Amino acid sequence: MAHISIIGTGNMGQAIAGIASKGGNSVELLGQSDADKPVTGDVVVLAVPYPAVADVLRARGDSLAGKVVVDITNPLDFTTFDSLTVPADSSAAAEIAAALPQSRVLKAFNTTFAATLTSGVVGPLPTTVLIAGDDADAKALLAGIVTAGGLRAVDAGSLRRARELEAVGFLQLTLAAGEKISWTGGFGLVN
Amino acid sequence: MAHISIIGTGNMGQAIAGIASKGGNSVELLGQSDADKPVTGDVVVLAVPYPAVADVLRARGDSLAGKVVVDITNPLDFTTFDSLTVPADSSAAAEIAAALPQSRVLKAFNTTFAATLTSGVVGPLPTTVLIAGDDADAKALLAGIVTAGGLRAVDAGSLRRARELEAVGFLQLTLAAGEKISWTGGFGLVN
Repeated sequence: MAHISIIGTGNMGQAIAGIASKGGNSVELLGQSDADKPVTGDVVVLAVPYPAVADVLRARGDSLAGKVVVDITNPLDFTTFDSLTVPADSSAAAEIAAALPQSRVLKAFNTTFAATLTSGVVGPLPTTVLIAGDDADAKALLAGIVTAGGLRAVDAGSLRRARELEAVGFLQLTLAAGEKISWTGGFGLVN
Repeated sequence: MAHISIIGTGNMGQAIAGIASKGGNSVELLGQSDADKPVTGDVVVLAVPYPAVADVLRARGDSLAGKVVVDITNPLDFTTFDSLTVPADSSAAAEIAAALPQSRVLKAFNTTFAATLTSGVVGPLPTTVLIAGDDADAKALLAGIVTAGGLRAVDAGSLRRARELEAVGFLQLTLAAGEKISWTGGFGLVN
């Protein structure tokens, strides 16, 4: 069992807390009023919107050294829904990893809407959490948490693949915003 | 009914020919030995690997003026499976559109493996063809062909979204090459 800190108490933070709890892990959910509380988890999920990540890293970056840090963001320009706010040859995860050289950064949960994390299904399919990262042990740890929580986990490769995961998340958000799909649907993965 | 030319007789070209035929459209399948045959379709599918597209455009570009041209490529560096061969802020579709200013270029079929086009299903889900492009009539024409062929078609937005579609195709190819999924599976879309 792992001890997991989730920074951010929105629908994604709550859904991920539910998954981690379901698998028997201990979970600490830290909201904006918990700025003075230390982060105690071995795994720390940054469940805040991408524009708020920089503040979290400024306030808590040093305390994330040695930990597995999970980036779930979709760094979308929500005013236009037409581009990401990170450079085209980079990703939010790469930017976060550069800011946290002492942490093992993973990209995960950005291609699954909160409703599919909570229900465990995307239509007829089990919900799949795609995980990218450069540290195999960190990926295996997160995959174990996801699987114990009743979802499927798939290793999507190195942290370079975060760029493609963010493209999937971006596309999926535009499809939902454009009412081509609902917020309980989206991409499912078939083996 | 439309008249459709498919340039390329590989498994994708054949699968798309099958879909178009099933819907009652007339289909012309042009292989490498048909270099002297004119392209007669109103809709032209470039069903060749991305590195071969430049040659097709050199040979046939002028004759594609006024037509709907469908780019299905995944411009992957197949030696490394670690990057695309188009600039990070561009896409194969954008490059093709720039080379064919007199054509209406669409991106489609690059997120569906040939087997799922032929079977019509991705696991328990109907196969969804995501279509990006800047011309609404061209997208509606292709969506009609796809739907008449028994598949689902979803408008994925402007041709700028080809970049994200190519990221989905890239990711899906890496998952299959890494045996995380099979070549009969991949991403399905739930409404």
